[in-house]
Amino acid sequence: MKTTDVRRDIPLLEDVIYLDAASTTPTPRPVVDAMCDYFYNYNANTGRGAYQMAIRATEKMDQARKKIAGFVNAYPDEIIFTKNTTESINMVARGLEFEEGDNIVVPNIEHHSNMVPWLNLRSKGVELRVVSADENGVIDPDSVERAVDENTRLISITHISNSIGSVQPVEAIAQIASETGALYLVDAAQSAGHMGVDVKKLGADFVAFPGHKGFLGPVGTGFLYCARNVQEKLQPLNLGGGTVDQVTEDNFELTGAPYCFEGGTQNIAGFIGLGAALDYLMRIGMSNVERHSRELTRFMYCEIHDLEKVTVYGSPENIYGIVSFNIDNINPHDLAKILDESRSICVRSGFHCAIPSMKHIGAYEVGGTVRASIHYYNTREEIEILAETLKEVSKFLG
Amino acid sequence: MKTTDVRRDIPLLEDVIYLDAASTTPTPRPVVDAMCDYFYNYNANTGRGAYQMAIRATEKMDQARKKIAGFVNAYPDEIIFTKNTTESINMVARGLEFEEGDNIVVPNIEHHSNMVPWLNLRSKGVELRVVSADENGVIDPDSVERAVDENTRLISITHISNSIGSVQPVEAIAQIASETGALYLVDAAQSAGHMGVDVKKLGADFVAFPGHKGFLGPVGTGFLYCARNVQEKLQPLNLGGGTVDQVTEDNFELTGAPYCFEGGTQNIAGFIGLGAALDYLMRIGMSNVERHSRELTRFMYCEIHDLEKVTVYGSPENIYGIVSFNIDNINPHDLAKILDESRSICVRSGFHCAIPSMKHIGAYEVGGTVRASIHYYNTREEIEILAETLKEVSKFLG
Repeated sequence: MKTTDVRRDIPLLEDVIYLDAASTTPTPRPVVDAMCDYFYNYNANTGRGAYQMAIRATEKMDQARKKIAGFVNAYPDEIIFTKNTTESINMVARGLEFEEGDNIVVPNIEHHSNMVPWLNLRSKGVELRVVSADENGVIDPDSVERAVDENTRLISITHISNSIGSVQPVEAIAQIASETGALYLVDAAQSAGHMGVDVKKLGADFVAFPGHKGFLGPVGTGFLYCARNVQEKLQPLNLGGGTVDQVTEDNFELTGAPYCFEGGTQNIAGFIGLGAALDYLMRIGMSNVERHSRELTRFMYCEIHDLEKVTVYGSPENIYGIVSFNIDNINPHDLAKILDESRSICVRSGFHCAIPSMKHIGAYEVGGTVRASIHYYNTREEIEILAETLKEVSKFLG
Repeated sequence: MKTTDVRRDIPLLEDVIYLDAASTTPTPRPVVDAMCDYFYNYNANTGRGAYQMAIRATEKMDQARKKIAGFVNAYPDEIIFTKNTTESINMVARGLEFEEGDNIVVPNIEHHSNMVPWLNLRSKGVELRVVSADENGVIDPDSVERAVDENTRLISITHISNSIGSVQPVEAIAQIASETGALYLVDAAQSAGHMGVDVKKLGADFVAFPGHKGFLGPVGTGFLYCARNVQEKLQPLNLGGGTVDQVTEDNFELTGAPYCFEGGTQNIAGFIGLGAALDYLMRIGMSNVERHSRELTRFMYCEIHDLEKVTVYGSPENIYGIVSFNIDNINPHDLAKILDESRSICVRSGFHCAIPSMKHIGAYEVGGTVRASIHYYNTREEIEILAETLKEVSKFLG
């Protein structure tokens, strides 16, 4: 499928220039159709009914889980459904039994969702070792190596920074985690669906995924990859229906993974939609998505970088899918509003839920940055309009 | 709106006799339409963008929260969005700081989701005091009164038993909680949307709600009512994006309720759908829903009760929306399959995620019960077909 085909499946792209994929992506028609099919034809609960309609819902959920597992090179029982990436990360932060004296190593360019859950463990006597990125927002594996020691229980790092777009050397850091004996979590919020993410190749014990961003699935979906060999270390947090094999008034017996982690009725429509979204991505072809994103990111970076009075963060060699920038003397929120009001350009502005990252690149004091982020549905023409509009704004207001 | 009008909005009711509302309800067309409107016209993230489409999504979510709050007589900031009832209950179990020596009082007829989260606290030295229901599955407030003492930190009880349909004296128990100084949680999984649930009238500190059952909202939605005066006692569990005002490398500052409890991208489509579902219920009129449910439950109870070789659990004076039963010498799963295969009747069978409850009514050894559960879309004719079919099965196989 070409970009023009995909655009036909996303009606709102006729009205706006949507450059906020890093926040969420619009859901293509075949994904919505798969959810409507559930709602209208087999809207039953899963894993619980003996009747045909419930069996059908259960089979569809199982198929979705298998599809997701296959897409990231995991076993189906390593895929734990969550509502979003944040829940996936907190599941690890609260589910692992950290002890006083443990330390966790995390970069300073992380989204709050990969920072605050670890900061919160300080109350348990866990030390947080925050590693500084370089001037382009990239973590040097050597600085991680220097931060770890025999008490390092976990290294947690984003695959791609949500605020700058910088791609991190996640495989090199996996090596350090492995040598140290630390657990390793990768936050794939900005990479999944934008580039191939192979959990085995990443060498991670945990990978936190959104369903509603690069994968083009619906809001309300995410998942945690939890490698089989570390599942026993993770305590389930949502106990109740579906998580137990036996319950007495004194005790309970957990069922196996992934179900012990998935208490209560799941977002069945959402995960069936996510399965359909992966079918859709496969129809596009992930290599086409990658080529398109790489070219369009580079094009966007250069177009914006060449403008006057503009600061672009990160280096063109390292960024992917996201370009973060500012125009001198214009507040990023004001700039975002101007882009929307003048040409219906949807970009994110502010701190991007990553205040330490904004401080690191020196953008905190100016109110953060403007962030343009893309997917396969975006075109060169849209980026040209963005650049033209920025040029005019820079000329008259910058 | 009449039942026939509602049935036109739920296409699958043409194909099956759906009697599994206690598990989940089918989603009416106007609710699905509201979600599609989001997906096709303003599929942006909330609370984050300066652009019009994001502002629209945020306003729609705010409206949904206000609508939900109004429906249960709460303030909007007392409504915390969750993915299901189970998450709502676990949010309290893990969010309150229980101490060694505290005790929790809970009935023995609860769903696992209102039992296992408390059982799990035993590892912290918290005592679980399980109160026995009477032979009809109803808790006597006096037995709760006898169970509580000055160390009772929480009383947690279901409004309506999911396995038997017995309505509990939740307001009388609120009185006991209040006098004891214990916190009070009501699990409204089986009452919300089936009868008016007024959190203030219930006298509860916490009420756990599903979105996808009686409310006729989509799967993937639920919420926790958390009274303003106890919000400070509850620690947020999903920390990250949207939950903080400030983050440094050393510390973080939480934002106010309800947002501090709602980390990451929410199920925006789902909650907008839930808002539309409440509009839909209001068009039906909750007094009409209640009258219909009361009459149809009574009719169903009597029709089934009068059959030979049938055991019906609970008393007709106390049950609401749910009838749980068995035919002698037929395994409940087999009976459910027969009902489905012969007349496309969808009922739930087994332990209903409530093993202690099944033991209490003496149905554990026979593999649980068959459970038929209704909503406004069900008709007398459907119940007659159920009774006829049961009569035949009882005659030839019982």
